[in-house]
Amino acid sequence: MKVEYINAFIESTINALKTMVMITPKRDKISVKKDGESASFDISGLIGLAGEAVGSVVLSFPEETALKVVSNFIGEELTTVDSDVLDAIGELTNIIAGGAKKIFSERGYSFKISIPNVVHGKDHKINRPKDVPCISVTFTSDAGPFAIEISLKVAGDK
Amino acid sequence: MKVEYINAFIESTINALKTMVMITPKRDKISVKKDGESASFDISGLIGLAGEAVGSVVLSFPEETALKVVSNFIGEELTTVDSDVLDAIGELTNIIAGGAKKIFSERGYSFKISIPNVVHGKDHKINRPKDVPCISVTFTSDAGPFAIEISLKVAGDK
Repeated sequence: MKVEYINAFIESTINALKTMVMITPKRDKISVKKDGESASFDISGLIGLAGEAVGSVVLSFPEETALKVVSNFIGEELTTVDSDVLDAIGELTNIIAGGAKKIFSERGYSFKISIPNVVHGKDHKINRPKDVPCISVTFTSDAGPFAIEISLKVAGDK
Repeated sequence: MKVEYINAFIESTINALKTMVMITPKRDKISVKKDGESASFDISGLIGLAGEAVGSVVLSFPEETALKVVSNFIGEELTTVDSDVLDAIGELTNIIAGGAKKIFSERGYSFKISIPNVVHGKDHKINRPKDVPCISVTFTSDAGPFAIEISLKVAGDK
């Protein structure tokens, strides 16, 4: 997977959190994710990409980080994870995927994005097809740690 | 959501299980799924749809059903859920979404499908955006119960 693809998602994630959540995350580690190797956190927003680029983006938070992020996002102190919190995580995932889509289209690649699904479950894992590379990027922030995971195949690439 | 959309997914699910898994499932209940109202099972294949129809399809199994279905699918008796089992559930989700896509395109609607992600976690829940209707269809089968959940907005529909 080309570095510029990953950078588009990192850039979009930092932009979205800065402007929508007033949090400036710092990129931590980038790693190739092998199936079952690492767990996602408790709450994961997931959106499918289809077109010249096919894949998915996952935005995954521990519950505590999710609550702080969504509290900032909607401007109200939240202490329990309910469907409004999950909706907000879905919306953020949508904003990040949409931002990356814009960056991709400026570089001549187009894809469409599906609706966000948000998975909630302690220590759930998300498996991808073995033939689609997946890169995990962890972030640290004032709200706590979180990660994005990008699975992507771009038409014409190897 | 129009009944014919749901029927395309039901038809595709029954076809896929009949031909690929040698199991003939029976449709049980159809219900409108409200956020957080009902739990998914332990293992859920999830695929995004993007284009004239936007949404997602989830194929969700209890672990026991998943093991029986995948054992039939690959012709080998399996007793533990590993990444091969999750891959196979992803493949089945892909076949079902692809089958529905074909039925939709014969009726003049086109959409693209993303790659399947498979969520594994006891009693995980999957949340969708509130503005996208979601229909749950449960099935009974010789391998045990399972469900499909279809979230769909079709361009031009209300």
